[in-house]
Amino acid sequence: MSKRFITSEVEKDGKFVRQENRFITPFGIEEGQLPIESGRYRLLWSPACPWAHRSVIVRSLLGLEEAISLGTLDPIRPDVERTDWAFTLDENDVDSVLKIHYISEAYLKADPDYKGRFTVPAVVDLTTGDVVNNDYFNLTKYWEVEWSKFHKAGAPDLYPVELRKEIDELNNIIFHEINNGVYKAGFARSQEAYEEAYDLVFNRLDWLEERLSLSRYLLGDNITESDVRLYVTLARFDIAYYNGFNLNRNRITEFPNLWGYVRDLYSQPGFGDTTDFDAIKKHYHLCAVSNNPYGLLPKGPDLAGWKEPHGRDKVNYKERN
Amino acid sequence: MSKRFITSEVEKDGKFVRQENRFITPFGIEEGQLPIESGRYRLLWSPACPWAHRSVIVRSLLGLEEAISLGTLDPIRPDVERTDWAFTLDENDVDSVLKIHYISEAYLKADPDYKGRFTVPAVVDLTTGDVVNNDYFNLTKYWEVEWSKFHKAGAPDLYPVELRKEIDELNNIIFHEINNGVYKAGFARSQEAYEEAYDLVFNRLDWLEERLSLSRYLLGDNITESDVRLYVTLARFDIAYYNGFNLNRNRITEFPNLWGYVRDLYSQPGFGDTTDFDAIKKHYHLCAVSNNPYGLLPKGPDLAGWKEPHGRDKVNYKERN
Repeated sequence: MSKRFITSEVEKDGKFVRQENRFITPFGIEEGQLPIESGRYRLLWSPACPWAHRSVIVRSLLGLEEAISLGTLDPIRPDVERTDWAFTLDENDVDSVLKIHYISEAYLKADPDYKGRFTVPAVVDLTTGDVVNNDYFNLTKYWEVEWSKFHKAGAPDLYPVELRKEIDELNNIIFHEINNGVYKAGFARSQEAYEEAYDLVFNRLDWLEERLSLSRYLLGDNITESDVRLYVTLARFDIAYYNGFNLNRNRITEFPNLWGYVRDLYSQPGFGDTTDFDAIKKHYHLCAVSNNPYGLLPKGPDLAGWKEPHGRDKVNYKERN
Repeated sequence: MSKRFITSEVEKDGKFVRQENRFITPFGIEEGQLPIESGRYRLLWSPACPWAHRSVIVRSLLGLEEAISLGTLDPIRPDVERTDWAFTLDENDVDSVLKIHYISEAYLKADPDYKGRFTVPAVVDLTTGDVVNNDYFNLTKYWEVEWSKFHKAGAPDLYPVELRKEIDELNNIIFHEINNGVYKAGFARSQEAYEEAYDLVFNRLDWLEERLSLSRYLLGDNITESDVRLYVTLARFDIAYYNGFNLNRNRITEFPNLWGYVRDLYSQPGFGDTTDFDAIKKHYHLCAVSNNPYGLLPKGPDLAGWKEPHGRDKVNYKERN
């Protein structure tokens, strides 16, 4: 997102406050909700974006690829002064299903007066071509709960009923202090706002590091919704946030548990095969940071360690309280 | 050094080519050379600058503090569009001996037509108030060789006659590929020039890492001139160059030998007590990088490790070839 555009999301004290979502109608079976129909929707994402990446990881883990198709946007924005995303990775720069060049076309078709940023993930209803949902916070939960009849055989339960309260609480923390916490640092325009965000993020990483000494995943032996949320930020940390957003107390490689944990997830289908480090790097350093006058793409960091054995499956974890 | 000013030192292909020094009259006993007299000169430095830091480390190791006085410039430049340095750390913003506010005054007194950057280190002759030498490459060698009669008892021989050829060769490599190599990356204005510098620096760090598995210091068991040269860049690497100059393949902490070596030096008088991480951070991130529109000072990295035992005195090194 560009330097100019986010001005509307920066407070007087230099703090970044993320815009609210515009399209939040839930999926469901009630009147006025978005109907659950295989083949009806197209999920638009870019591998650069953590919020969109999350919805694609869950779609993959649950086996929803046939039910919900996927359109992929170029991590390099078409114009750094706008916040559009383009289908420049596709033949003739056009999405093969929607026949549009830019995601803005689907947003403005749904609401010609839409003034917000054009964000991914966005769900487009193929019967109309309109964006019908861009609710990145809840989208994965719709995939998990409302779309269950289309889950593949043996799909994991990422949002088990008995853990939902704990998952929701943890997700709130992860959202404010990790997923969006890094943006609060990166988009801060005062030293005070930046330092507050820096402390918020690293204090929470220290807490997560300790927590992950107690169990393989955040909620125990099985991957849940919360792990997907933490993963997408950890996977971008050393490559984008450490240097691009000034979050340079430590790299993730310096936290033994977090570093093992993120490699454990990366090694599994749905995570590593949807993680595009090259796209992440290009997007953040060439489009998201406000401070790259000569358009230089950092060549590092060294990513060789990502494929080394994580050892998390062999650890004897302590009892969590 | 500011974004605008260094334009005159950037080639058409985006490469940074450092200006030549203007004041290069040697110290010595011959006609036309600068006479060796205790109390006659004032060395101007800023703890931010690696070139100046080097001359101060050697002055300290050799015990030249009484013979050559020291004036200290603020790591924050007075005006980011110029390249001056100011005495704003001193009472009334004036150097107590020279009675000037800015280093430019001593440069322009020596040469009213001087058009280059105003650099540290600079040696001022107190009999005239003129800058008489700013030859950062050779200054330490003058301290070592020409100023020997003022060395303290038991001062180390940093430039032993039998090693001079090897030291000179190594110093040339360290200058082009390490000391100035990081600037070639940080001030590059094309992707190609940047990547070439990045590879130059990290290839040489890999080579140095290997070399330092063979001996405690670069030339064996004793500190030499070359170690001082390598130290000043290593001490700034993780705090300034990794993120400010996009040299982010690895941090120095990830090279076991280099990391032990730099902490070994840091723990010794002359090195650690002249290393001001706070000044370094402020200078590079607020004045040297071209890309900090909101003037944010990165809070990291975590420097706790610098005081941990380095273990280099206990290593059995292999025979160097």
